[in-house]
Order: sequence, then C-alpha cells, then structure tokens
Amino acid sequence: MANTQITAEPGQSQIIITREFDAPRDLVFRAHTDPDLLVQWLGPRDLKMTIDVFDVRDGGRWRYVSTDAEGNEYGFHGVFHGTPTPDYTVQTFEFEGVPGHVALESLTLEERDGKTFVRTVSTFQSVEDRDGMVASGMEHGVRDSDARLEELLARLQNG
Amino acid sequence: MANTQITAEPGQSQIIITREFDAPRDLVFRAHTDPDLLVQWLGPRDLKMTIDVFDVRDGGRWRYVSTDAEGNEYGFHGVFHGTPTPDYTVQTFEFEGVPGHVALESLTLEERDGKTFVRTVSTFQSVEDRDGMVASGMEHGVRDSDARLEELLARLQNG
Repeated sequence: MANTQITAEPGQSQIIITREFDAPRDLVFRAHTDPDLLVQWLGPRDLKMTIDVFDVRDGGRWRYVSTDAEGNEYGFHGVFHGTPTPDYTVQTFEFEGVPGHVALESLTLEERDGKTFVRTVSTFQSVEDRDGMVASGMEHGVRDSDARLEELLARLQNG
Repeated sequence: MANTQITAEPGQSQIIITREFDAPRDLVFRAHTDPDLLVQWLGPRDLKMTIDVFDVRDGGRWRYVSTDAEGNEYGFHGVFHGTPTPDYTVQTFEFEGVPGHVALESLTLEERDGKTFVRTVSTFQSVEDRDGMVASGMEHGVRDSDARLEELLARLQNG
C-alpha cells in the first residue's frame, strides 16, 4: 500500500499532501468531484459526512458537514476557482468553526503507468492558521481518507 | 497624504498592503465593489481598465482587463469566497499571463475616527509566485491605484 506524505515546513503557511493510487486518473478525478463518491471516502471513519452542496464548476460553491458520534457538527465550505479538471482544480476552504480563516487548495492528478499521483497543496493566510490546522488532528483525517479512497477505487475497478 | 505600506517578508508567500483613506468605510467599500467606481481607480494611470464581469456575491466571478498604450491586454480574474462585506472580503486572484498561479486575497476595512484603514493580504501558493508578483512592477500599480482612489473618494465626498 502506498504511503501518504504530509509535508508542513516550519515557518511556512502550507501543507502539501501526496499519494499514489492504483487507479486511472479519470476515476480518481471522479472520486473527487462526484458527491456520491466523495461522501464514501472523505473524512475520518468515525465521522459521518453529509454533503450540503457540491457544484463542480467555475464559481460553484461546495459545503459539507461532518458529524461525530455525539452529534457535534463540523461544517466546511468554499468555492471553485476556474473550471475543475483532472490537471488542476483550485478551491477555497473554510472551517466554519474558525470563520474568516480561509485557505486556498489545489489538487493536481498525474497519471504514471496507469497509477495516479495525487498532490494537494493547502495554502493558509498565516503560519498560525496552518499550524492550527496541523494541531487539529488533520493528519488522522487525511490518512483515514486516503485509505478509504484506496478501498473505494479498488471496489469501483473490481465491482 | 497618507502613505501606502507594502510588506513582503523574505521567504514568505504574502504581500500585505495597508493605507488609511480620509473617507467613511461604507464609501471605501463601495469604491471596491461598484464596478462603475472601481474602474475609475484600480490599476496604474497609464493603463486603461475595462471590467468584463464583477459579480459581488458568494461564488460570484470577477474579471477585468488592463490595456496599455500599445494595445497589449492583461487579463485578471477570480471568484468571491463568501458574501463580501466591509468587514471582510475574500477572493481568489489569477493573472492570465501566468495561468495556474492562483492567489488568495483578503480585504478588511476598519473605520477609525471617520477615516478608513484598508488592509489587503495577498497569499500566493509559493514564495516564487509572490516574488514574481513583486518583480512584475506591482508596487507602481498599487501606489498609482491608491492615489487615484484617494482622489476619487475626495470627488465623491465633495461633489
């Protein structure tokens, strides 16, 4: 199984996440942009995710809510900049628990010998915002999400 | 006349611009969001600016084009994240001359004794992107824009 690499250089305001998936690029892109697929893998396993809106186009809004076992809700929203493509998708990102702290996220998918190399760059408005995201336990969510995405991609290819 | 402060710390990916204007906050906000006013001050004096679209709402797109004396066109576009307010407006920003290099911009307006303190933070996806924007002669455009905005605000209050 491929390893997820999470890079957060000290004193910088970015988080870079990379991972290779054993699936063609178009399928990986679909898993990122089709709400019916996204809801099956995004977020840690112990949270339930519901999608409020996911309008994949230039200026389209997205919003989803994660709910824990106690019923606490965590909302996230943003907007797509430019038309999302497998080459390059850019969106804004805001956790509603700390409103006004907006980040910019880019997603690039690169096909390599039938596998897909996924690179996500999250750029925060300050090092403090970035450090806050790292401290929030984001890594657990990313690793769970990537494992779930790998499982979903296997099901979609073998189903 | 107030001075525009432009801060670009070495090794960081941001540009922070601050300036005080002798005008109430609502008027300064209107100058930033009403296309008929924006076109009168944004950009250096030696370029002609035309607004293609400027849809001030959550997910609304904006695009403008600056044209120099030789007819060369420089396009810029982005999208608003969240509903723009005088307190806080967030948008993405892309210069079409270097596509794929998207920045995140925030605008905060603070009223102080009838004057308005304006703070713009531009966050780039890399230090190289930020340095490229600084090297592009951005400072000349910012200083011209702020002087033109000051003149416009005076006209609007005295007219």
